[in-house]
Amino acid sequence: MAGNTFGEAFRITTFGESHGASIGVIIDGVTPGVEIDEKDIQVQMDRRKPGQSSVTTPRKEYDIVHILSGVFEGKTTGTPLSIILHNHDMRPEAYSDIQLAFRPGHADFTYLQKYGIRDHRGSGRASGRETAARVAGGAVARKLLERRGVQIVAYTKELGGIKCQTFDEQAIEKNPVRACDPEAAVEMVKRVEQLAAEGNSCGGIVECRIRGVVPGLGEPVFDKLDAELAKAMLSIGAVKGIEFGAGFAAAEMLGSEHNDEMDASGFLTNNAGGIIGGISTGQEIVFRVAVKPTSSISLPQRTMNVKGEEQEIRTIGRHDPSICPRIVPVVEAMACLVLEDHYKRQAAMLG
Amino acid sequence: MAGNTFGEAFRITTFGESHGASIGVIIDGVTPGVEIDEKDIQVQMDRRKPGQSSVTTPRKEYDIVHILSGVFEGKTTGTPLSIILHNHDMRPEAYSDIQLAFRPGHADFTYLQKYGIRDHRGSGRASGRETAARVAGGAVARKLLERRGVQIVAYTKELGGIKCQTFDEQAIEKNPVRACDPEAAVEMVKRVEQLAAEGNSCGGIVECRIRGVVPGLGEPVFDKLDAELAKAMLSIGAVKGIEFGAGFAAAEMLGSEHNDEMDASGFLTNNAGGIIGGISTGQEIVFRVAVKPTSSISLPQRTMNVKGEEQEIRTIGRHDPSICPRIVPVVEAMACLVLEDHYKRQAAMLG
Amino acid sequence: MAGNTFGEAFRITTFGESHGASIGVIIDGVTPGVEIDEKDIQVQMDRRKPGQSSVTTPRKEYDIVHILSGVFEGKTTGTPLSIILHNHDMRPEAYSDIQLAFRPGHADFTYLQKYGIRDHRGSGRASGRETAARVAGGAVARKLLERRGVQIVAYTKELGGIKCQTFDEQAIEKNPVRACDPEAAVEMVKRVEQLAAEGNSCGGIVECRIRGVVPGLGEPVFDKLDAELAKAMLSIGAVKGIEFGAGFAAAEMLGSEHNDEMDASGFLTNNAGGIIGGISTGQEIVFRVAVKPTSSISLPQRTMNVKGEEQEIRTIGRHDPSICPRIVPVVEAMACLVLEDHYKRQAAMLG
Amino acid sequence: MAGNTFGEAFRITTFGESHGASIGVIIDGVTPGVEIDEKDIQVQMDRRKPGQSSVTTPRKEYDIVHILSGVFEGKTTGTPLSIILHNHDMRPEAYSDIQLAFRPGHADFTYLQKYGIRDHRGSGRASGRETAARVAGGAVARKLLERRGVQIVAYTKELGGIKCQTFDEQAIEKNPVRACDPEAAVEMVKRVEQLAAEGNSCGGIVECRIRGVVPGLGEPVFDKLDAELAKAMLSIGAVKGIEFGAGFAAAEMLGSEHNDEMDASGFLTNNAGGIIGGISTGQEIVFRVAVKPTSSISLPQRTMNVKGEEQEIRTIGRHDPSICPRIVPVVEAMACLVLEDHYKRQAAMLG
Repeated sequence: MAGNTFGEAFRITTFGESHGASIGVIIDGVTPGVEIDEKDIQVQMDRRKPGQSSVTTPRKEYDIVHILSGVFEGKTTGTPLSIILHNHDMRPEAYSDIQLAFRPGHADFTYLQKYGIRDHRGSGRASGRETAARVAGGAVARKLLERRGVQIVAYTKELGGIKCQTFDEQAIEKNPVRACDPEAAVEMVKRVEQLAAEGNSCGGIVECRIRGVVPGLGEPVFDKLDAELAKAMLSIGAVKGIEFGAGFAAAEMLGSEHNDEMDASGFLTNNAGGIIGGISTGQEIVFRVAVKPTSSISLPQRTMNVKGEEQEIRTIGRHDPSICPRIVPVVEAMACLVLEDHYKRQAAMLG
Repeated sequence: MAGNTFGEAFRITTFGESHGASIGVIIDGVTPGVEIDEKDIQVQMDRRKPGQSSVTTPRKEYDIVHILSGVFEGKTTGTPLSIILHNHDMRPEAYSDIQLAFRPGHADFTYLQKYGIRDHRGSGRASGRETAARVAGGAVARKLLERRGVQIVAYTKELGGIKCQTFDEQAIEKNPVRACDPEAAVEMVKRVEQLAAEGNSCGGIVECRIRGVVPGLGEPVFDKLDAELAKAMLSIGAVKGIEFGAGFAAAEMLGSEHNDEMDASGFLTNNAGGIIGGISTGQEIVFRVAVKPTSSISLPQRTMNVKGEEQEIRTIGRHDPSICPRIVPVVEAMACLVLEDHYKRQAAMLG
Repeated sequence: MAGNTFGEAFRITTFGESHGASIGVIIDGVTPGVEIDEKDIQVQMDRRKPGQSSVTTPRKEYDIVHILSGVFEGKTTGTPLSIILHNHDMRPEAYSDIQLAFRPGHADFTYLQKYGIRDHRGSGRASGRETAARVAGGAVARKLLERRGVQIVAYTKELGGIKCQTFDEQAIEKNPVRACDPEAAVEMVKRVEQLAAEGNSCGGIVECRIRGVVPGLGEPVFDKLDAELAKAMLSIGAVKGIEFGAGFAAAEMLGSEHNDEMDASGFLTNNAGGIIGGISTGQEIVFRVAVKPTSSISLPQRTMNVKGEEQEIRTIGRHDPSICPRIVPVVEAMACLVLEDHYKRQAAMLG
Repeated sequence: MAGNTFGEAFRITTFGESHGASIGVIIDGVTPGVEIDEKDIQVQMDRRKPGQSSVTTPRKEYDIVHILSGVFEGKTTGTPLSIILHNHDMRPEAYSDIQLAFRPGHADFTYLQKYGIRDHRGSGRASGRETAARVAGGAVARKLLERRGVQIVAYTKELGGIKCQTFDEQAIEKNPVRACDPEAAVEMVKRVEQLAAEGNSCGGIVECRIRGVVPGLGEPVFDKLDAELAKAMLSIGAVKGIEFGAGFAAAEMLGSEHNDEMDASGFLTNNAGGIIGGISTGQEIVFRVAVKPTSSISLPQRTMNVKGEEQEIRTIGRHDPSICPRIVPVVEAMACLVLEDHYKRQAAMLG
């Protein structure tokens, strides 16, 4: 109801504000008897954490994973696996000037409208920091998916108007923008650094490919696999759109072009993006999300304050000029959560 | 779990196959004491039903609304409001040749993979016919939203490569493609009729605008208002993508361009599409969905049959050359369901 | 949220009022490929239906089962299995005098308090008639449980102060009160007939035994198997209490008496009623429910009317002098729903 | 699904094992803007904690409440309110001898059957320690209910065969067994101390009274207020039965005796226990739960070990000779959770 829980058969519940004591996640429905180590989770946390390069915020969150429950002698027990991350390097004073004014692009105004009260420190619950708990939960899902032979990889496809022209999966984690084209990556970094210097930010497109999913996954009607992935992705603050397979290009295609024909060996094309009728085809699942430019920019902007007066604001702080590189592990984490949940739902249906 | 229920505080559960006896919807969580009439629902059903014009399938489904429970002396009672629609004009024999072959673009293959069994008659549960139950449920939600002053309107924005250039809300229901530009509508009809004659189909883009929503609606983190709308829309079989406000164009914008500034009178732009941080701003909510070309075409296509053999298939039957005109009321219905649910969730949070 | 849905992985949603057009149930999460016939469901409906003997109401509800969806060529498809039962022999006029007065023991007053409106005809949604939809849903669950080797049997243990002294399972369906002791049954029938003649009613105790459940079923903490069974049973209108195994007698036992010891062959006693820590032990699951006397009696009673005035009321109509015999199949149905749901939840956890 | 979440509109999710690092609770759906302090929660924790008197285990858990999120400047923010309790005085070695044998009355056997793995240390997740997280969550619910004028009080009604003869609410917290009859309390303490000396334990009955609930609370059909309370109570490990109002005595009453008549001033009796048709009448809600004797006793008992061999076991450790005194705040906490949830559900329905 209140929206801090995701999934049904494999379910996470997260808590925590940007500048509170800690954030964390409780994972319920974990398969018992699976070997898991804090390191398995830490490696994903490190991909999301800030301060990795010139293109991310220098805020230091060590994001050290602490498993509090659900693991015994190195194995999952089937009881809730809870993970806590303590907040560090909190500088609430840096945000004191934003206490009274609504930062453009941020949820300051809407949170106040909704709750009548808000924790203004670093965006409170609306902070991108919240996604750290998702990545921790997703890392556990990924661990379970590995046993099923499922692989999930996301990467920057376009950034600041620069598009990847090639797809080199090995290149992704070797460049700071996590682009799939190492040459485009060089241009992207330049672009982002330039925008950062100007106090501005840019958007981009992140693509995700999922391999090894069995055909037959996804529930019909409302909980279609693509519907659930869409919800998962749009639940990430900066994401403003999603498309599967041919996506929006399908709007300009004919049925004879878009339909994926088959021969005796299987599908010949993948315009559907690996999902038909909400159910996996067994092909690669492919989708792209539109990532808006980071809202926090230091250029002056017009806004309103809590008294209803107009004022100018410059969002000083430590921010990412583009969130794409750090959103990549969040996209993967959410995809992992959706998939593991649907594997378990399929098991329930057949079981 | 099994995916035939949508919503939490205002919730629908649907049932029924394309060529079974009946389809229907149970609506739970209806505000009591609200005047409602079968006519209120029928009017929406009639917008979705086939056989309305040259651009829709000639299949006759009378789609006569029968309320079976939850209404007493013309008012809702707060108990489940159930609606049944009996199927007519079923011609299962027309589909007997598709019993063994997987029609490209259809969920024949994936349903069989998922369940190991399928009702092949007219796509069974995977048929677009299933959306009739959604429209019935959405009509009840719409009735409740009217009391809140919320208005929802969707329309064809692009069809078969032809784009609307103007926005004339009054024109929408006056042309058979439900386009917002009457001149473009003329071209669209021509295009669709031509494709139908060729045995082909085309996709398009449907846009939805929602007005009168209070600021503060939507749950943070996973159940963001845009995330829920995204799930709702992608749960419609033919939808392959969604974008809010500036949408995918945000990927090429700078923060200084995309951020919606405010002055003392409120927001100056609406690149966010009326939702920030997953919560409504009080502005118009705007999103667009990509609709794929209708999968059923009579041109010959290559496919596989259940024995794993390649064969040619021509989908004979009564189909829409483009589903956009009839998807418009479905998009509106799903939006109504999401909004009424979130109004009630907000009431619970504050209550 | 609104309470008309039960279960998670195997889930029913019911609708319908006592004197409306129809009542029904949608069952979601049905295992596909299972042979099912309307007769499998009808046999359970017939056990619950009124007019079976001198100890039940003469109201005629034919309760003919119509499957509307989810079954194809005699097998379940995995899509929602919906069942409708049309109401017959409705005599709303018989209830017109109760429109304005609150019948003691009935939910007239509380429904009006809750909703501000009520369908007074035959108790509307609060009628015991609603349980017919549960029995239909339970019959489908029972069909799935049979494949697992699970057997559920309930029976009258005590009625109108007369207690069963023996347990003869074969006798249960052979006497009109469904008692497990044929001699006590004779006395019970006499007692009930006498009370009916006096315009009064009586309560009783129904016991349920479940065999063949694997050890390890039930979720820890909140969704313990006994907790879910308790909710299921207390959701039946006339049930006012439940106890497992030794039950309330445990309050007067010592740990050394109550603890079920084991030897190499397994448990030596079953004071726990087959559930420890909320999880099945593999032994017989045993519980008892307290059934209150039927509220509808023709003796005069004091009550209040909707204007707040005191008045006398005599509940004329067709009622059961004791609901125990007809509650037996409802208890079984609810137990079936809980068990099938938990089998599927276990499959999800391990899957 | 996996059972570690309770409630819908007001929802808690708990985690943690008896001898792990920490246990905790996330509370979602908290009304924003309500003043709350760790002390409000601590006072309830202190009522549940061990080591309070001669009749409770001497295990020391300081149970110091730490709020990690959801409160800002002393007020709730509407975001998840998370509370953590660090475990102290863990002596896993004390349990090393029970690692391989199943303790009678404990969930050792059933957990292993369910999960194939178990954290044997102090019963792991199945420990009564888990209820500390419930009490923390319940304390927040209680805070919200106070604003609604709702009061919840539970107490020992019977212990070790000794029954309270009077009801003195002021006496409850003044005697170590939390009995409502101070004279009976003296006898109960003697009885419990004697049993403890003998290495044995005893059961009892806890009664709960709830005042100030508006009429009209509770959902019809499956989520009846009594059904939800029954689930809540049976979810407490040691509870084996529940009854409302006249409860099991109703089985021997006539309709003319059990029906609660009304006059112009309202109900004249309360055999229903304040709930009719699953909805509150506005009267006092009254129920009783049967509490089994503590399973851990130091008398020798027969059992099986994980190898399937019979062996003798004596449960050495620090245990409560009767759990009734400490279960009282847990019963209250669960009742608070159910009520606050239903107030919010009612707000959603009407909202």
